[in-house]
Amino acid sequence: MKKVAIVMGSDSDLPVVEKAAAKLEEFGVPFEVHIFSAHRTPDEARDFAANARANGIGVIIAAAGMAAHLAGALAANTTLPVIGIPLKSKTLDGVDALLSTVQMPSGIPVATVAIDGAANAALLSVEILAVTDERLAQKLADVRTIAKQKVLAKNASIEARFNR
Amino acid sequence: MKKVAIVMGSDSDLPVVEKAAAKLEEFGVPFEVHIFSAHRTPDEARDFAANARANGIGVIIAAAGMAAHLAGALAANTTLPVIGIPLKSKTLDGVDALLSTVQMPSGIPVATVAIDGAANAALLSVEILAVTDERLAQKLADVRTIAKQKVLAKNASIEARFNR
Amino acid sequence: MKKVAIVMGSDSDLPVVEKAAAKLEEFGVPFEVHIFSAHRTPDEARDFAANARANGIGVIIAAAGMAAHLAGALAANTTLPVIGIPLKSKTLDGVDALLSTVQMPSGIPVATVAIDGAANAALLSVEILAVTDERLAQKLADVRTIAKQKVLAKNASIEARFNR
Amino acid sequence: MKKVAIVMGSDSDLPVVEKAAAKLEEFGVPFEVHIFSAHRTPDEARDFAANARANGIGVIIAAAGMAAHLAGALAANTTLPVIGIPLKSKTLDGVDALLSTVQMPSGIPVATVAIDGAANAALLSVEILAVTDERLAQKLADVRTIAKQKVLAKNASIEARFNR
Amino acid sequence: MKKVAIVMGSDSDLPVVEKAAAKLEEFGVPFEVHIFSAHRTPDEARDFAANARANGIGVIIAAAGMAAHLAGALAANTTLPVIGIPLKSKTLDGVDALLSTVQMPSGIPVATVAIDGAANAALLSVEILAVTDERLAQKLADVRTIAKQKVLAKNASIEARFNR
Amino acid sequence: MKKVAIVMGSDSDLPVVEKAAAKLEEFGVPFEVHIFSAHRTPDEARDFAANARANGIGVIIAAAGMAAHLAGALAANTTLPVIGIPLKSKTLDGVDALLSTVQMPSGIPVATVAIDGAANAALLSVEILAVTDERLAQKLADVRTIAKQKVLAKNASIEARFNR
Amino acid sequence: MKKVAIVMGSDSDLPVVEKAAAKLEEFGVPFEVHIFSAHRTPDEARDFAANARANGIGVIIAAAGMAAHLAGALAANTTLPVIGIPLKSKTLDGVDALLSTVQMPSGIPVATVAIDGAANAALLSVEILAVTDERLAQKLADVRTIAKQKVLAKNASIEARFNR
Amino acid sequence: MKKVAIVMGSDSDLPVVEKAAAKLEEFGVPFEVHIFSAHRTPDEARDFAANARANGIGVIIAAAGMAAHLAGALAANTTLPVIGIPLKSKTLDGVDALLSTVQMPSGIPVATVAIDGAANAALLSVEILAVTDERLAQKLADVRTIAKQKVLAKNASIEARFNR
Repeated sequence: MKKVAIVMGSDSDLPVVEKAAAKLEEFGVPFEVHIFSAHRTPDEARDFAANARANGIGVIIAAAGMAAHLAGALAANTTLPVIGIPLKSKTLDGVDALLSTVQMPSGIPVATVAIDGAANAALLSVEILAVTDERLAQKLADVRTIAKQKVLAKNASIEARFNR
Repeated sequence: MKKVAIVMGSDSDLPVVEKAAAKLEEFGVPFEVHIFSAHRTPDEARDFAANARANGIGVIIAAAGMAAHLAGALAANTTLPVIGIPLKSKTLDGVDALLSTVQMPSGIPVATVAIDGAANAALLSVEILAVTDERLAQKLADVRTIAKQKVLAKNASIEARFNR
Repeated sequence: MKKVAIVMGSDSDLPVVEKAAAKLEEFGVPFEVHIFSAHRTPDEARDFAANARANGIGVIIAAAGMAAHLAGALAANTTLPVIGIPLKSKTLDGVDALLSTVQMPSGIPVATVAIDGAANAALLSVEILAVTDERLAQKLADVRTIAKQKVLAKNASIEARFNR
Repeated sequence: MKKVAIVMGSDSDLPVVEKAAAKLEEFGVPFEVHIFSAHRTPDEARDFAANARANGIGVIIAAAGMAAHLAGALAANTTLPVIGIPLKSKTLDGVDALLSTVQMPSGIPVATVAIDGAANAALLSVEILAVTDERLAQKLADVRTIAKQKVLAKNASIEARFNR
Repeated sequence: MKKVAIVMGSDSDLPVVEKAAAKLEEFGVPFEVHIFSAHRTPDEARDFAANARANGIGVIIAAAGMAAHLAGALAANTTLPVIGIPLKSKTLDGVDALLSTVQMPSGIPVATVAIDGAANAALLSVEILAVTDERLAQKLADVRTIAKQKVLAKNASIEARFNR
Repeated sequence: MKKVAIVMGSDSDLPVVEKAAAKLEEFGVPFEVHIFSAHRTPDEARDFAANARANGIGVIIAAAGMAAHLAGALAANTTLPVIGIPLKSKTLDGVDALLSTVQMPSGIPVATVAIDGAANAALLSVEILAVTDERLAQKLADVRTIAKQKVLAKNASIEARFNR
Repeated sequence: MKKVAIVMGSDSDLPVVEKAAAKLEEFGVPFEVHIFSAHRTPDEARDFAANARANGIGVIIAAAGMAAHLAGALAANTTLPVIGIPLKSKTLDGVDALLSTVQMPSGIPVATVAIDGAANAALLSVEILAVTDERLAQKLADVRTIAKQKVLAKNASIEARFNR
Repeated sequence: MKKVAIVMGSDSDLPVVEKAAAKLEEFGVPFEVHIFSAHRTPDEARDFAANARANGIGVIIAAAGMAAHLAGALAANTTLPVIGIPLKSKTLDGVDALLSTVQMPSGIPVATVAIDGAANAALLSVEILAVTDERLAQKLADVRTIAKQKVLAKNASIEARFNR
């Protein structure tokens, strides 16, 4: 199976990004984790992206805050799908990162998820790999079913409490 | 090859959405186009999404404006990757559609592109199909090279004009 | 009397939503509480809305955060009035939920109240039931009078403190 | 049947507000139209709201722009449901009117619809009257069915064009 | 001397509003404090404003949060200058109150100060009274001089620390 | 009577600012008009403000766009009330000017009106002069009455048209 | 003298960027113009920035819209001062470009000017070169004086028209 | 070497501004620190800026919050490059300061950095001085290299942890 690569701009992003790693582990999808900064290590970021397909990577997840260029910078150097996680920083509630990530110019898309949406970024990468992987598609369906059961159980409990 | 399905919420969205269709034609990727409204035809939208994988679809592109629920409503009924195009309407410059599309809760991701970013939505769908399709990946690389040549040619022309 | 149904997208929304339940109890209006997710249990949400009128429900209150599709998804499946409570989440101060709830396309209205405005959502549902219920209308007037007396009492106390 | 009252803050709001009147005519719901300004004719606005229930009105629709106080000012003087239409003015794209209308304090709800959402305001008022009016509820269902048929017809036409 | 009236929408606004009272005491300007709600006690608010000039009031300061209609509601019933203090509430950082206060329609101005800017509201009321009061104008000048001396003293201390 | 001074940052602001001049003429309030830029002619702006009270001015109206410092720069050099009109420019719909004008630090208030709210700025200046001028206060009341009559006449005409 | 380099992301940006070139010509500062895209020609952009100092460039001006990464991408590859011009595009009024340009992470600053502020970007580059260039500093002072004279002349004309 | 002057509007800004001072010390660039308020000490601010070039200053850094006029007020009185740091205050997350600082009118640029971006402001000032200072340019390159090494080290550690 192709691997998912998770790239973050700084190790301070780890508490959010870990949720993506945990989700990929849950699905048994092989992944690797890197720290590359679009601004502090632009060459390493570029080389990583340029070689990603050849290195067996299928999807790249990039997490960055503020003027979040990381996802776009990686996307500029690969034709693999790049998923961007805009991170909330000390000000502006992540709006800066959201717009810097999603408003990409024509030709270089970034698949953007919610602010701090690391788990969904991982899920999306699994969905992408599952397009041609029946077993993984089944696993996604199973996870959905479990999530649904959980909501139904909570509903049952709240209905028992409130609806007499 | 898996097909791409383009879904829009209303036929008034066609002028933007057409750019996605044109881009898919450029890549020779098979696609279909539908109008389903999350609010006016919720059952048809649901059924379409629920059956999409079985119907040979690999990626769904959904375009909607205002409280843009379409992409999320489709994503709730399939584990295929769903790409959301937030559309600009008469007020708010598309901010309502952007937030309604990208801020999905954990468990149901939508891969969001820029406001009115139909061409990039199509490109992203091609990138997703190309993860396991060498020929398509090569085509993506070729299109990038052509785009690059165009920028370089424009640069040459502007350098000739300004830099003596 | 018709019942009010309160639906929330997740049990984590309960601390806000409880204020709606408390307010309905204050008015002696019968109500039920449910957890349905537009994205995790779309079919259950749909069935609930589609059968609500037949089940004796007069007004639906829906509370959700982020890309808050719940109120709109219910409204798409019933012609009962649906009141939407946009919930504040970890980022964006509830602006995402507000726009996702209020900016509904023509044909499917959602009666939106303030961010986290659960008490007002309940009051609005009572006002709706009171359109054809004299006794309830009188109770609304009484509650207004009490609220007014409270403000006047506070004013008296502050005037006594500041205005010599 | 109870009447719907449409109130606007200025006659310049008529081009938007007319859509509410047209929608009510479509449903055969009796209605009246007024111009009252929360700021220029506060007493008339107050008296109108205070007497509305006695005058056979069931729902009030209020449309105003900028610091849109009209809906709130009416709601302060009646316990009838008040629907607010925030209007887009020359600047700020209606955000000022939206926040001034929806962010009502606890105790005095305003049922807010989308910016310039006059047709939905009328629909919501019909839904409110239909809570206890079977015939009107049926008409709402019929109108939904027609809207659905229109979408399906457009879908058929676009599928015929694009999907070979 | 004319009095300044400080009106707040709720006693929970007192911690901010107190700074206005303190500032007026510093200037020896007579003032009174009231709680009137544009929505819960609209008649009392109206009567207060309508009689303010006759009651010896020269300037009204109104503080309110969320859909802050209080300043506008008072201004609609008096031709005295009304100063609006938009208050920050639990969401939106006071943007709702700012727009609800400042974006008044033509004919009914509200002199708006910064979010939670109670001290400046009081200063502005003193400036208004000082237009025709030489002694008060002198006091304003003196207070400015003191504020300037404070900044200069802090500058001296920071220059001594950093600039060798 | 004290004069009102209208200051604008650039002659391109005249189309908006003229409405303030027209309103002052309507009230027979003496006024002067100036162009001073906080950034291009800071010394002239400063000297104007520093001498305004001595020159018989009672209120200053300052209109500026973008990073609108003019009102604040004048307020820093006078204790006269300064009214700020935030102007809409080519981008951002006047939000930049609104925040630059209203969010003044403690000690130096600016009485801010709506974006492009020149007529209200003039009205506010008249209200300020009328605090101690009975005749002007009466004129303000008369103008309010006329405005009210206009609304009532429009209401009568619209009621005649819609309400049979 | 060091040269100024103006870089834009696309030739569609030329109408705005030309104002920077015109301003530099006015000052007789040597400059060159290029089109490099952070996303379509990342290597060329990188090489340009990495070699800029060696090529006699003193300041780089970068203009880009949407998720405007260009200025940041150049800054990541040079320690020359990089001035960013956020460009307004079809939606969002340039807010996306402004935040993408100014909210740079620690270590890689971009000197950001106003949205579409090309003339100011050029002026800022001249100010930077003038830090160690007396003649250029004098020219800046002269241009300021001329700008001031223009404002004063306009003021004289408007005073003659309005102030009798 | 020319000096850098750091000016803040209030001593409460010191915790942020100190980072600029620390960064300048790291580079051995001479600097001075001042407190001048655009509004409370406008004359001192003006005189400081007007004499800055003659006093051996090469770049001015100005930090202010809310309606942040300080950088613009200094820039109006000098042709030295002025760097603006918009500061986050109690409301609005620094958006007010950002727009008040960056949206300068044509003719008077302010080089704006990120909200609370004091370290980057200092770095930018060093970059400006380094345009004509080889030694300083080398130091900037060295600091970049160190920052890069740090990221690479963190990457190595995270790769060791996650990638087996």
